[in-house]
Amino acid sequence: MKIGFIGLGIMGRPMALNLKGAGHEIVAPERASLTAEMRQAAIIVADAAAAAAASDIVVLMVPDTPDVEQALFGAGGVAAGLRPGTLVIDMSSISPVATKQFAARINALGCDYVDAPVSGGEVGAKQASLTIMVGGPDAAVARAMPLFQAMGKNITHIGAENGTGQTCKVANQIMVALNIQAAAEALVFAARAGADPAKVRAALMGGFASSRVLEIHADRMINGTFNPGFRIRLHQKDLNLALSAARELGVSLPNTATAQQMFSSVTAHGGADLDHSAMVKAIEILSDYSLLSREAIDGKEPS
Amino acid sequence: MKIGFIGLGIMGRPMALNLKGAGHEIVAPERASLTAEMRQAAIIVADAAAAAAASDIVVLMVPDTPDVEQALFGAGGVAAGLRPGTLVIDMSSISPVATKQFAARINALGCDYVDAPVSGGEVGAKQASLTIMVGGPDAAVARAMPLFQAMGKNITHIGAENGTGQTCKVANQIMVALNIQAAAEALVFAARAGADPAKVRAALMGGFASSRVLEIHADRMINGTFNPGFRIRLHQKDLNLALSAARELGVSLPNTATAQQMFSSVTAHGGADLDHSAMVKAIEILSDYSLLSREAIDGKEPS
Repeated sequence: MKIGFIGLGIMGRPMALNLKGAGHEIVAPERASLTAEMRQAAIIVADAAAAAAASDIVVLMVPDTPDVEQALFGAGGVAAGLRPGTLVIDMSSISPVATKQFAARINALGCDYVDAPVSGGEVGAKQASLTIMVGGPDAAVARAMPLFQAMGKNITHIGAENGTGQTCKVANQIMVALNIQAAAEALVFAARAGADPAKVRAALMGGFASSRVLEIHADRMINGTFNPGFRIRLHQKDLNLALSAARELGVSLPNTATAQQMFSSVTAHGGADLDHSAMVKAIEILSDYSLLSREAIDGKEPS
Repeated sequence: MKIGFIGLGIMGRPMALNLKGAGHEIVAPERASLTAEMRQAAIIVADAAAAAAASDIVVLMVPDTPDVEQALFGAGGVAAGLRPGTLVIDMSSISPVATKQFAARINALGCDYVDAPVSGGEVGAKQASLTIMVGGPDAAVARAMPLFQAMGKNITHIGAENGTGQTCKVANQIMVALNIQAAAEALVFAARAGADPAKVRAALMGGFASSRVLEIHADRMINGTFNPGFRIRLHQKDLNLALSAARELGVSLPNTATAQQMFSSVTAHGGADLDHSAMVKAIEILSDYSLLSREAIDGKEPS
């Protein structure tokens, strides 16, 4: 099958290569940033409209909501080239509310739309082990499924309504951020009270406090190793989606709001490109206490 | 060995019976509330002082910090009967700060002190599978270890300083409360945005958002089944320990503070004796949206 692929970045490249490995032809718009490997693997055309015109299915994997809007509806965008019956799959992580609007506009051109954001990062993309959260009509999702199976493993069709895949991804990012803050508060408290945080983590792994975040992110906090992983900058984008959508829907998310402010504090101290487990730095700054050195950060009395 | 056991409640009874099953004699103070089973299993003496005087090791399992203080130092309390060399083990969940003071007072009587709070609840107590978090000097902990092995499974010696066991337990309760709030915010958001919360939970179980709380407590939220389990009333006691100790230590715990207020909201609505997963009700009340019925709670506009 011919697949137009818009967004051959860190995530998009291995995903497109996995689709090619499953026997599909990849069609991609010209970009100065295309790697030599992708120029060889794909058919390069002038723009997204030309890629859509040449394809049976168009996949998008771009950073944020405005990027999807531009790729779909901007000059030379997908919508300008779409033939009726073409399937559009957006695998970016973007606003669930905007997704419903994009889907309606694509549907009006006689095309189906599926939102299918992923988690699992670059490693999951390379290993074709992404978690994929899917929203869209049953028939469209069935048509997309062989592609998903070439790129991921844990594939869940959340609902027939567009946006439900994006909503699930946002829920995932809320959970992960708040579980990180849970570990950060628990570990800074324990260390400041005189307990070895590594032993506390080990004791907690056996019980109701256990989580993937306690397993992985708490370990990074204890060792002070914050090379990403998943950057705070990107998690802030996702919590912005959560808080904007929550405001539109009338949902009140007190701890999600605070977690976003903790990320902002780390960003204020120059940590936007650290792994999201570095949220612990905000709790350390608030408490003037370093989990790693187990002493005060500045040692000064508040003036 | 003769073991004085102070506090034969829902947790203490099965723990004492497991000690008896391991070949120890149980000595307990007279109480009107003693069950017929415990009257048969234990040697009943006048008060805690008499139980301590007759024992090699004294175990306490009572509700809160003031109860431990009363049992140890009140009239007819453990301290009044202790002979030098007797080991005191407090398995209650109480203040880490007060624990250091209690230990110093017991040490002054020529006795060792070990703090060893547990998690795992009544089921863990009956099955001798409790998680036990231990603080105290190596020799005293080694002496206590055979008793712990008769009552629990995941036994961690956190530190040689008294209070480190209690600190670990407090850290555990912080993690669990914040993981519960994480699931509550994520699920109310997802459902209000039109996604089936059960499918969202299933999708999230495979990735970085996975946790024991997502497995167990999120399921209770989705099904609206809040019979305890672990009561909000008790989790509020534990978060009070966390926030009091944090204030004394100069640690700032923003989401722990908010979680306590969420529990207070559920309590205000009559839910103090519901399972702690009912914290979701506070997010539902804030958002005027029921996760179970998936509609507004009162349906009225704010006046």
